[in-house]
Amino acid sequence: MISRDDCVRRDADDPLRGLRELFVLPDGVIYVDGNSLGALPRATAARVAHAVQAEWGQGLIRSWNEAGWITLPKRVGDRIGALVGARPGECVAADSTSVNLFKVLSAAARIVEAAAGATGPAPTARERRVIVSERQNFPTDLYIAEGLCRDLGWSLELLEADAIAERLAPGRGDDVAVVMLTQVNYRTGAMHDMAAVTARAHAAGALMVWDLCHTAGALPCDLHAAGADFAIGCGYKYLNGGPGAPAFVWAHPRHAGRFWQPLSGWMGHAAPFKFQPGYEPAAGIGRFLCGTPAVLSLIALECGVETLHAADPLGGMQALREKSVALTELFVRLVDERCGALGFTVASPRDAARRGSQVSLTHAASDGASHGYAIMQALIARGVIGDFRAGGPADAHGPALPDILRFGFTPLYLRFVDVWDAVEHLVQVMARGEFREERFNQRAAVT
Amino acid sequence: MISRDDCVRRDADDPLRGLRELFVLPDGVIYVDGNSLGALPRATAARVAHAVQAEWGQGLIRSWNEAGWITLPKRVGDRIGALVGARPGECVAADSTSVNLFKVLSAAARIVEAAAGATGPAPTARERRVIVSERQNFPTDLYIAEGLCRDLGWSLELLEADAIAERLAPGRGDDVAVVMLTQVNYRTGAMHDMAAVTARAHAAGALMVWDLCHTAGALPCDLHAAGADFAIGCGYKYLNGGPGAPAFVWAHPRHAGRFWQPLSGWMGHAAPFKFQPGYEPAAGIGRFLCGTPAVLSLIALECGVETLHAADPLGGMQALREKSVALTELFVRLVDERCGALGFTVASPRDAARRGSQVSLTHAASDGASHGYAIMQALIARGVIGDFRAGGPADAHGPALPDILRFGFTPLYLRFVDVWDAVEHLVQVMARGEFREERFNQRAAVT
Repeated sequence: MISRDDCVRRDADDPLRGLRELFVLPDGVIYVDGNSLGALPRATAARVAHAVQAEWGQGLIRSWNEAGWITLPKRVGDRIGALVGARPGECVAADSTSVNLFKVLSAAARIVEAAAGATGPAPTARERRVIVSERQNFPTDLYIAEGLCRDLGWSLELLEADAIAERLAPGRGDDVAVVMLTQVNYRTGAMHDMAAVTARAHAAGALMVWDLCHTAGALPCDLHAAGADFAIGCGYKYLNGGPGAPAFVWAHPRHAGRFWQPLSGWMGHAAPFKFQPGYEPAAGIGRFLCGTPAVLSLIALECGVETLHAADPLGGMQALREKSVALTELFVRLVDERCGALGFTVASPRDAARRGSQVSLTHAASDGASHGYAIMQALIARGVIGDFRAGGPADAHGPALPDILRFGFTPLYLRFVDVWDAVEHLVQVMARGEFREERFNQRAAVT
Repeated sequence: MISRDDCVRRDADDPLRGLRELFVLPDGVIYVDGNSLGALPRATAARVAHAVQAEWGQGLIRSWNEAGWITLPKRVGDRIGALVGARPGECVAADSTSVNLFKVLSAAARIVEAAAGATGPAPTARERRVIVSERQNFPTDLYIAEGLCRDLGWSLELLEADAIAERLAPGRGDDVAVVMLTQVNYRTGAMHDMAAVTARAHAAGALMVWDLCHTAGALPCDLHAAGADFAIGCGYKYLNGGPGAPAFVWAHPRHAGRFWQPLSGWMGHAAPFKFQPGYEPAAGIGRFLCGTPAVLSLIALECGVETLHAADPLGGMQALREKSVALTELFVRLVDERCGALGFTVASPRDAARRGSQVSLTHAASDGASHGYAIMQALIARGVIGDFRAGGPADAHGPALPDILRFGFTPLYLRFVDVWDAVEHLVQVMARGEFREERFNQRAAVT
């Protein structure tokens, strides 16, 4: 059995332990929801205050140049890009994940249709008009793809993760235009092998779009080594950019000059300050910008990204990944040791190499009832903040999905002792039957 | 001749004079560029700091509900809506102006195509496939319309402002799908009569889309009285929402349930927290939301909008408009009295009823040369911050456009004495030939 003291010792030996000091963390809280909203970096409050009071308040309009607001989307994009294997100038921070996904899917569709030489209404055997994705992909990704497919006359095909390889097998993928996947599943933490899936998509003649929402800042990622076509991701999870932080978007340079997208706003113009009539897209990734960027939110995102880069001298994403694996392995082992009889099952892959920076549990009591929601509420009341994701019924694409308790382990600010304490709280919630309390069983109607 | 003392007396008698105290304004600055970036409200710094430190830092993920982040887009949208004649629930704050314009033009296109019952490729006489706009409309509006027209197989037709009525005359507007105009011209401040133009568009069978970027917070606006179809506008000019503040979008309720738009992200879903497969748009304006909102920027916008509402007990937008007219009338009169011989011409309408909250000047020296750029740089060096907009060559749509010096007059925080001092600085810049200094003639290459 692993003891709390063992964990205290591991923390003392942890070469990354100092990074925790870069964050503000509330007293009495064990924050295992950094995969929903990253914690506040200590530098952010002062930096945002400076942006508000000095740059905006005193500099006013002059700050677009003098405080460098105008370069923020590319500057922050480059720093995010460095975390995911993009080269300088290939990535920008802008808009939301959903909007950026619309841009890259639109761009991919144009590339596919141009390649087929087919823009008319009559389908031919050579045409590719299917977007393949994972049934459990994050809903907004599927909504955006669904909307675009409707407009294009394409179809969106949803598969279970383990059926994707077969769908792309020789002779079977001829109709697939785009494969769109989130590398790390938001429910289970299960991870796709980016290079292998990209290679399969390309072998089938399809383009590969990656959603890196649960990848960027959580694990090493090399978009160039994988040869991906497009990628997008959000700024408010492992990048610690703050609530609703702008997202990012990347395109492989082999598509330079070809990846038109329809949100042709002035910031994506080749000469945005000439105010000339007629849209002429910027040569590179700049054309994925659209309107004026939300400067205050971008500055907070910059602080979050720089906080990740503070790990660079300590081994960067590779070192963070090693700690992340150690944290999730510890959690899995403690759940196995201490919670097996309490009805919990690890719903994430047990092979750490196939698991992102989170561990999900399902719960089924001895009578078969699932108390996942109430258990998470009881944990939150104790200061262990994870989250709950409801399951769903079986549908045409696959079987019913269970309710899930999610625990995200951010190696920047979580300690081994936090993992131990989180499990201890879980044990106590169950031992004391706290999850039966009425207050934890009232689901708030969020609208 | 109007004296500086006259202006000091007008300020003392101004019932709105106290509103200036709600803003942070740098010492030694006369800020006549609120039409590019509004000044910082005094309340904003503390409110944003609270959002960062307490709501994000301490509340973490819980603040989506407990701090009301999730309701921000509708809450702020309602408060903006109250300034432009929208009813509660009709307006949301989200994304950028450009992105929102893409949404409403896409929605309008679907309504038009559904009405024509024509979605196939063969044009008929009854089909409407033209977006009519103004040649001098803000470039990003034209870029967005251009991109959408390309995708739809439609065309964008650009006219001088005074040619629009004729284009919509009986028998001439049968091919017009949408009229898209910015109510107040960003260069000249010339203002369209919203009700009259909307009536003409409707008489021609077209939908009417208004860009309110230079209207919202600057002058009274009644979208319902005008019977407009869609409207968008930005948050960082007269709404004082901060650099790159989120924009807003409004749809007339007669289009409820019909105004589909393709940016179908999770926030626009009828049940965003059910994470259900299949996109089902929210019934009302909520479907114009897309991804997760930039919370920090939205909170700053909320402060800006509330600062405008501080004028409600003093007569609200009507009182602000009266002061705005008085300020621009004063500026025009002082320029006439003191700058006529210096080569300046008022390029804005002299009829205040046809002019927004800005006055633009052109400059031509006795030798015919225009020194507008250098003059504005010299003014800025003296603390009079306006801006310069370069002209453009003649093209197929109309004659050459002159260089413009823009002076925006925000009635919330500008005094009559500021107008007098701004003109005095202009006179001195000319009298001392400051605009000939080399430092004011080097145009920075902004990229």
